[in-house]
Amino acid sequence: MTEKLRILPLGGLGEIGKNMTVFEYGDEIIIIDCGIMFPENDMLGIDYIIPDYSYLMERKDKIRAILYTHGHEDHVGAVKHLMQDINVPIYATPLTAGLLRVKLRNAQLLHQVELNEIQAGDVFEIGSFKIEPFHVAHSIPDCVGFGITTPVGLIVYTGDYKFDHTPVDGWPPDFAKLAEFSNRGVLCLMADSTNAEKEGWTPSETVITEAMDEVFAQAEGRVIVATFASLISRVQQVANAAYKHGRKLAVVGRSMRDNVKMAREMGYLDVPDDLIVEIEATHRMPPSKVAVMATGSQGEPTSVIGRMAFGRSRLLSALPGDTIVISAHTIPGNDETVDRIINRLFQQGANVLYENVARVHVSGHASREEMKLMINMVRPKYLIPIHGALRQLTQHAKLAYSIGMPEDNVLVIENGTPVEFDKQSAEVLKRLPGGYIYIDGPGDAGDVTRRVLRDRERLGDNGFFVAGVKVNGVTVVGAIDFISKGLLSLEDEVFDGAREAIEKVVRHHGRKDDSKLTHLLEESLTRYLHGETGKRPMVYVILK
Amino acid sequence: MTEKLRILPLGGLGEIGKNMTVFEYGDEIIIIDCGIMFPENDMLGIDYIIPDYSYLMERKDKIRAILYTHGHEDHVGAVKHLMQDINVPIYATPLTAGLLRVKLRNAQLLHQVELNEIQAGDVFEIGSFKIEPFHVAHSIPDCVGFGITTPVGLIVYTGDYKFDHTPVDGWPPDFAKLAEFSNRGVLCLMADSTNAEKEGWTPSETVITEAMDEVFAQAEGRVIVATFASLISRVQQVANAAYKHGRKLAVVGRSMRDNVKMAREMGYLDVPDDLIVEIEATHRMPPSKVAVMATGSQGEPTSVIGRMAFGRSRLLSALPGDTIVISAHTIPGNDETVDRIINRLFQQGANVLYENVARVHVSGHASREEMKLMINMVRPKYLIPIHGALRQLTQHAKLAYSIGMPEDNVLVIENGTPVEFDKQSAEVLKRLPGGYIYIDGPGDAGDVTRRVLRDRERLGDNGFFVAGVKVNGVTVVGAIDFISKGLLSLEDEVFDGAREAIEKVVRHHGRKDDSKLTHLLEESLTRYLHGETGKRPMVYVILK
Repeated sequence: MTEKLRILPLGGLGEIGKNMTVFEYGDEIIIIDCGIMFPENDMLGIDYIIPDYSYLMERKDKIRAILYTHGHEDHVGAVKHLMQDINVPIYATPLTAGLLRVKLRNAQLLHQVELNEIQAGDVFEIGSFKIEPFHVAHSIPDCVGFGITTPVGLIVYTGDYKFDHTPVDGWPPDFAKLAEFSNRGVLCLMADSTNAEKEGWTPSETVITEAMDEVFAQAEGRVIVATFASLISRVQQVANAAYKHGRKLAVVGRSMRDNVKMAREMGYLDVPDDLIVEIEATHRMPPSKVAVMATGSQGEPTSVIGRMAFGRSRLLSALPGDTIVISAHTIPGNDETVDRIINRLFQQGANVLYENVARVHVSGHASREEMKLMINMVRPKYLIPIHGALRQLTQHAKLAYSIGMPEDNVLVIENGTPVEFDKQSAEVLKRLPGGYIYIDGPGDAGDVTRRVLRDRERLGDNGFFVAGVKVNGVTVVGAIDFISKGLLSLEDEVFDGAREAIEKVVRHHGRKDDSKLTHLLEESLTRYLHGETGKRPMVYVILK
Repeated sequence: MTEKLRILPLGGLGEIGKNMTVFEYGDEIIIIDCGIMFPENDMLGIDYIIPDYSYLMERKDKIRAILYTHGHEDHVGAVKHLMQDINVPIYATPLTAGLLRVKLRNAQLLHQVELNEIQAGDVFEIGSFKIEPFHVAHSIPDCVGFGITTPVGLIVYTGDYKFDHTPVDGWPPDFAKLAEFSNRGVLCLMADSTNAEKEGWTPSETVITEAMDEVFAQAEGRVIVATFASLISRVQQVANAAYKHGRKLAVVGRSMRDNVKMAREMGYLDVPDDLIVEIEATHRMPPSKVAVMATGSQGEPTSVIGRMAFGRSRLLSALPGDTIVISAHTIPGNDETVDRIINRLFQQGANVLYENVARVHVSGHASREEMKLMINMVRPKYLIPIHGALRQLTQHAKLAYSIGMPEDNVLVIENGTPVEFDKQSAEVLKRLPGGYIYIDGPGDAGDVTRRVLRDRERLGDNGFFVAGVKVNGVTVVGAIDFISKGLLSLEDEVFDGAREAIEKVVRHHGRKDDSKLTHLLEESLTRYLHGETGKRPMVYVILK
């Protein structure tokens, strides 16, 4: 019997293969990426989400390595959890390794982890896998895809990419390597589908350079730019614009400061020392000489820009005359918070520039024309669309058909669905159990079940109501302790009515069976409160 | 002293003048619209939001009339509340009146309300105001703006509009009337800013006719179209396509069925009887002969499409081969639920078409070129941008400057900010107190305060924890009743630890002062639970 290559993206019904993908051949496993997802609005109290990797926990001794494509949170954010559970050698390019090191140091795991730095263009072997990282352009430097030569054939994994001919770091994607893969023959291409609903070609990061130049040329007051803490290339662009227009630059927000420090030390950010000032120093400078970079592009209420918008920042208040640039795409689900912040900043007299009205952000992902180019350049036998939910994967698949790929050779799979390859063919197997793990609370507070999430939703919508009742025989003795939160500010008469409902049940049933009486009281109170408020609070009774 | 005209949009920091606007001169008030806002994702448990109209409650005897522009929820949805509080004569075009009648009948208010039907082109007087409704195109028929001639001058209020030359009902906007206003001299234009961030000209509703035709021509299985219950023109377009392609049409969802029935009776929908079938009958028909219209374009989990996506609909299951068309714009804040539904439908083998990949919806609002045309056609002295949040109003204002309006004559105001006009000039006054009312629970359960919303948010994120403790002197007697919801599934050892924390406090302080002991116990438990779970649940103790 010949062994097969198994490819398995892990996670639930989110973006497929975005956070973590497993490659397994015989008794060897390698992993690509281990990132986090951000919770959706109805996942109350959840900090972030990681893929359920129990598949790997059951195969610990097979795992040879984890390879990282780049340093964004959705690809590296869960490294702490994986390293706590499975200590496996890491392979990453220098900047990605730098960002991983910051995370591992914070989690006090750095000393116990084997972290290997690799370069785009390297060729190395891990067991039966020959690994060839190749340079791609995205919105962070030092980004790679992987050619993985396996015993059944060559797999090309793009990671996040776009075909940017003029990236900020001057390092265009490695077309030659893709052509070389193509000449060798590619069994399967696994390619980014993020923008499969976007026609055309994603603009180069360079258009932002031009937009920033215009913003800085026209701004009379301060220029404040909000973006992701990990968007190192954007920091470079803003620093360049500040330098050109004679402004000093302050960086605010801990994560952004950490990343900027690290990227400067490693040479990924070229920013002269005397360009940088502390934010406190800018308060004594003419506004026309000040530029600020900060976190908060997603409207996070605790970010610098979030606090500034609501007048709650110690370091930064919005001033009439400020030009505030939201230099990021609003992640679906964050529209309301971003919208609120933009409105608040306008209210305070600032001029706000954002994606809809100025070219202050472009996507880091390939659009449809680039996706066609990728397929035609690599000429794979099979395509597995990745990095997108089913809607994007389906559009990517249709795009592949439209340029001639046979329908049977495009494998639209979900997270948890293994695909097995031999040299000739591919087989999609049945989906394995598993999904996401909801990380709740700071530190390692552990994961939360769907049942707890449902309880939270009900509590958030309806509140709760507890009554502490002293019952002697068929009589309620003394005052009843009522505790109620999240319901309408209840009037006294509602509490009077609740007492009546309780007394009626107690008169009828008396204190014989405590658990039965509690149950009857809870039922009666639930009915009563629903009638009074129209809501269904969680109702509990404690017998004293 | 001469009287001034006061214009006052009501509500909070949402879309300005969207839901309700007051016009006051001397001892006369007229109102335009009284609609609802949908709650944002972090407004837990809230059903909908209405403007706080306490300004009107204090001036009840001045109010002469409410005029409605059109029948969408954000303009008519709060009629029930206003009519309960202030019974004022209503003026609306026939379709809008029909939709209002449905609402008033459901609220058992129809018999006590004076509902006057008006037509675009009418001229009538209400006190010192001369009212001239004029036809505009939008995404519902029978839509009007208002010319309001006041003692200080003519105000033109556009309502929701776009300049559609080929609307579904064949009735283009009344350009002649706008030109006539212009000739008479317009003191102030109040114009729709919704799409002030969209370049160009909004496509005509007719492009949807073509897109639907293509969808129906290519679909091999059923065609299922989801849209808003009030989007009467979309129903007409789908009915036409079904007729043309030899399919029967079933309408599912109570609100849509009600509206379709009413619109057919009133002649606003031209649908032959034998085109319509009940959904049950379609189960026995070949899929290629079936079209369905349903609610659920916003991913609402209890809507027809929402239930279908999760396999919970009795009437409609997604089948491989179905073509499902989401014919609506996703309202910001609903992206996640819509995304989830699209992914689920793809998962079940349906083909899903939506705004990003097919022209199955166009906006009902004017884009920037139309906004320029409106200003230049009406040639007002003043412009008050309305129907948008501050970000859109600001873009509308900049657009007005760009075509020559003096900056001082464009008044960007917030809800609650009165503007006073005399014949020559306008003055923006200080913002009045007030904002939105959060309607909570079915029926008339009343509004919810910000404090209750904060409690709900904390409950949703952190859950609650109640301990019922029997204390004799310095001893805890018997078992402690623990009630905890929304926290991690607590392990026994956490309860053991909580008991220890309680016993320690009781040993130290004993039962002397119940209220003090309760407070100390709650403090200690809060600390303990935060240490154990990293969360901050609401903690309460009941002494037995």
